[in-house]
Amino acid sequence: MTIFDEATAVRRRGEGLYDAQPDQRFAIVAAGGAAPPAVNGGALIATVLRAVLAESPHPHPVATTAHFLRVARLEPAEVHVSWLKHGKTAATARATLVQGGQPVLDTTVTTGTVPVSSLDGAGGAGPDAAAPGELSWTGPAPDFPALEDCVDLGPWRGSVSADGEQGYAMQVSVLLDPATTGWRHGEPSGVPEMRAYFGLREAREPDAYLLALAVDGLPPVVFGLGATGWAPTVELTWYMRAVPCPGPLRVAARCRHVGGGWFDEESEVWDAAGRLVAQSRQIARVGRGRLRPVNGQRPAD
Amino acid sequence: MTIFDEATAVRRRGEGLYDAQPDQRFAIVAAGGAAPPAVNGGALIATVLRAVLAESPHPHPVATTAHFLRVARLEPAEVHVSWLKHGKTAATARATLVQGGQPVLDTTVTTGTVPVSSLDGAGGAGPDAAAPGELSWTGPAPDFPALEDCVDLGPWRGSVSADGEQGYAMQVSVLLDPATTGWRHGEPSGVPEMRAYFGLREAREPDAYLLALAVDGLPPVVFGLGATGWAPTVELTWYMRAVPCPGPLRVAARCRHVGGGWFDEESEVWDAAGRLVAQSRQIARVGRGRLRPVNGQRPAD
Repeated sequence: MTIFDEATAVRRRGEGLYDAQPDQRFAIVAAGGAAPPAVNGGALIATVLRAVLAESPHPHPVATTAHFLRVARLEPAEVHVSWLKHGKTAATARATLVQGGQPVLDTTVTTGTVPVSSLDGAGGAGPDAAAPGELSWTGPAPDFPALEDCVDLGPWRGSVSADGEQGYAMQVSVLLDPATTGWRHGEPSGVPEMRAYFGLREAREPDAYLLALAVDGLPPVVFGLGATGWAPTVELTWYMRAVPCPGPLRVAARCRHVGGGWFDEESEVWDAAGRLVAQSRQIARVGRGRLRPVNGQRPAD
Repeated sequence: MTIFDEATAVRRRGEGLYDAQPDQRFAIVAAGGAAPPAVNGGALIATVLRAVLAESPHPHPVATTAHFLRVARLEPAEVHVSWLKHGKTAATARATLVQGGQPVLDTTVTTGTVPVSSLDGAGGAGPDAAAPGELSWTGPAPDFPALEDCVDLGPWRGSVSADGEQGYAMQVSVLLDPATTGWRHGEPSGVPEMRAYFGLREAREPDAYLLALAVDGLPPVVFGLGATGWAPTVELTWYMRAVPCPGPLRVAARCRHVGGGWFDEESEVWDAAGRLVAQSRQIARVGRGRLRPVNGQRPAD
């Protein structure tokens, strides 16, 4: 079992009630360092989804909406699941991560069935393969450089704990398109975009839980505008469009508007077969401060 | 008071409890005609938002997530509102439209404050005007033809009741970019896009409620692929990015992927000052049937 699977595990305690534990190993270290570290939002969503899918009549989290209410603490949590609808095509649950009696992350999840992607078309549908008579269409894929031309993000500001061994950035492999890395050396591109190959550092193939991590797995797009402060997500919605095939995921994120202290970030996740497997959009706050460099150094330079 | 304001009104009955009435005048007539007509989803969201904003400590619905669970009937409904968080920057409520004891539309709404757009910059911020030191950035606006070059959609298949006088299409003015109208005469463009100037037929300036209508106000984008059947929304999330200035709204909608019977539709709403005022994304089912022509005729040809 990978660290990711451990960190997002739930244990059933009763009908619609699960125990969980936000994990230091997926923490993002917040500005200032004195505040308790926030856990990566995607890891928290994956945790909640495990509880939902344990009870769902359908296999896939087609639409997940998540409102982030409070910073999750590194202590025991509960996931409360209640079902609003059990339909033939779709079922909908409300699922909340709770700590100390207060909702931390409130989600609503509609489950259903999506196609299975595969590299060779055997045992499943390849990219854009469709059942006879079924409508299939996909917009143009984003341009990505070859994997070997990308830049290993490594630990970036605020993603590693003071001891340098813990934290989200130590768990994920993010190979950035060099066009989106200027912020790392104080020369942001001026365009709020991020593109990267994404996976865990441990060997583990993608699934719904890893997609939940991938859709919010890159540094915030506003880093490209030089706004490298803490950028807390307020709401994130993601759609699962297919079960990804084995291999690295490509994540392309962009922004459409920054204003009034808010910015949106939308990402697409494409699998190794070239299939669009997930889409997300979030709205977040533009951070005012800058994150404290790890150990007083500038990481990832 | 406009028909839209009447049709989306709520009456407070108690703490977090409101009466509402899904309105025939915003009904979409479903395939077959025998089934009770579904009410436009945006009008239902606007109804729920009235109840939320009546109680909110912040003025604007920044992020609204909505899962459509059942078809709303044309009979009395309740809106139940409960607050999950009251923060300084954002507050979050769960709000549900209920009929016969069952949830019909389940929403979660995060309220906050967004900038005010104006045509001349007086009394508010113009497009991309920002407070000193505040980050502001906007991506390129979609291309729109001049208003006088657009095509009045008029009543389209399934949007008018059998008597020809009721229904959603009689309330809204949709002036379509001619590039997105091929489906009206059996020659779909092959691209799932819709672009139109959007407003009510009655004189009424845009606000948060009208934005809730606008983000899902055009015919489904998959009409552009020839799939003109009933396309029920499963989940829709929309963000309010600014208070729109007076004048017509421009709505640009596109799709990224159709597969497995699901399609996404994302729309942007720009105001008359050229400011991005709302963004949405929804996931919906591809309809299998075609809608029955109104009165046996093909409307809008």
